[in-house]
Amino acid sequence: MKIGVIGTGNVGGTLGKRLADLGNQVFFGFRNPNTPAAQTLMDAGGPSAVATTPKGAAEAGDVVILATPWDATQAAIESAGGLAGKIVVDTTNPLLPGLTGLSIGTNTSAGEQVAEWARGARVVKAFNTVGYGIMADPAFPQGKPSMFYCGDDAQAKGIVAGLVAGLGFDPLDAGPLTQCRVLEAFAMLWISLAVKYGYTPDFAFQMIRRNAQ
Amino acid sequence: MKIGVIGTGNVGGTLGKRLADLGNQVFFGFRNPNTPAAQTLMDAGGPSAVATTPKGAAEAGDVVILATPWDATQAAIESAGGLAGKIVVDTTNPLLPGLTGLSIGTNTSAGEQVAEWARGARVVKAFNTVGYGIMADPAFPQGKPSMFYCGDDAQAKGIVAGLVAGLGFDPLDAGPLTQCRVLEAFAMLWISLAVKYGYTPDFAFQMIRRNAQ
Repeated sequence: MKIGVIGTGNVGGTLGKRLADLGNQVFFGFRNPNTPAAQTLMDAGGPSAVATTPKGAAEAGDVVILATPWDATQAAIESAGGLAGKIVVDTTNPLLPGLTGLSIGTNTSAGEQVAEWARGARVVKAFNTVGYGIMADPAFPQGKPSMFYCGDDAQAKGIVAGLVAGLGFDPLDAGPLTQCRVLEAFAMLWISLAVKYGYTPDFAFQMIRRNAQ
Repeated sequence: MKIGVIGTGNVGGTLGKRLADLGNQVFFGFRNPNTPAAQTLMDAGGPSAVATTPKGAAEAGDVVILATPWDATQAAIESAGGLAGKIVVDTTNPLLPGLTGLSIGTNTSAGEQVAEWARGARVVKAFNTVGYGIMADPAFPQGKPSMFYCGDDAQAKGIVAGLVAGLGFDPLDAGPLTQCRVLEAFAMLWISLAVKYGYTPDFAFQMIRRNAQ
């Protein structure tokens, strides 16, 4: 397959190199092909890698991988000529500076609203990311499902983590209460898959780790 | 531990019953304790279960589990007396009717914006939910990491799913392009854990299933 890569940093570079290794012809769309980073990537890509411009990558690719920093994405699409008719693999995330959240699409959460309504309470988000069937019986052959929780009070989080562990989950601290924004969306992923998009509710997610963390 | 449950449906009922089984004293806050459902739950909870009002559950619990439908949450907190000083486990999700998304906190996504900018392109969201280190080498002792993708064009999604599988991930269809809202937040979960909240980037998520799906 012919694959164009727009955005040749860590993500675009890694995907392009691996797809070239698998035998695809990969067109790297460099804004400047004469940088050391571009040369390193071309060397790594081997004979299946082609150096071109973003517009060249967009034209050549049956599939175009978009791997730009969010703030550069609109300009990159324009410089590629628009991408009409292309299959575009969008790998972008609209990250806020400091990784405090997403710059578009989210601005609050149920958990934060609950904390405002329940003034003075120490609110911990938990037990929102799987269905009650999993909470009734979290035993999987593959091991314990992960259960994230978040909140702003360390003591309250410790107590809730104990409840989570006691119920048979692997409790994982996801950070402050603003993380409700991601945990509620994570819940939406579970719910939408279980109910709408062809999976049944008898699944969960497990954080898998390696290299002895 | 003394645990109050506000919202005694599937989630609150399941958690309350299991926490009672584990030896906690569980105060179920029924709006009406005389319904068949309330009686069934009290029978299931055994001698560690106490039937009371939402206000009674809030007062008695060292920890209060809030498991109301989102639209009933504010009123439930008010009827419980406010919850100040309590450890509150918020299990709510602000689901839209038809499970099309969340009613607060999200309203668009980078992927939808990309599709608008790249007019006429067939945009598939993928490769946004783990770091490039995992994309460089997705081999885990526990098996293949999950890689979600979403989009509105079935053929384009099939092609991208092939790329995802070829790179060593378990490709999972998360639905239409609006699911970018949840996949980008899911990415934010990975990123924030990897970079800010005490995990290192050498992890991924795996969908675990049971009962032969």
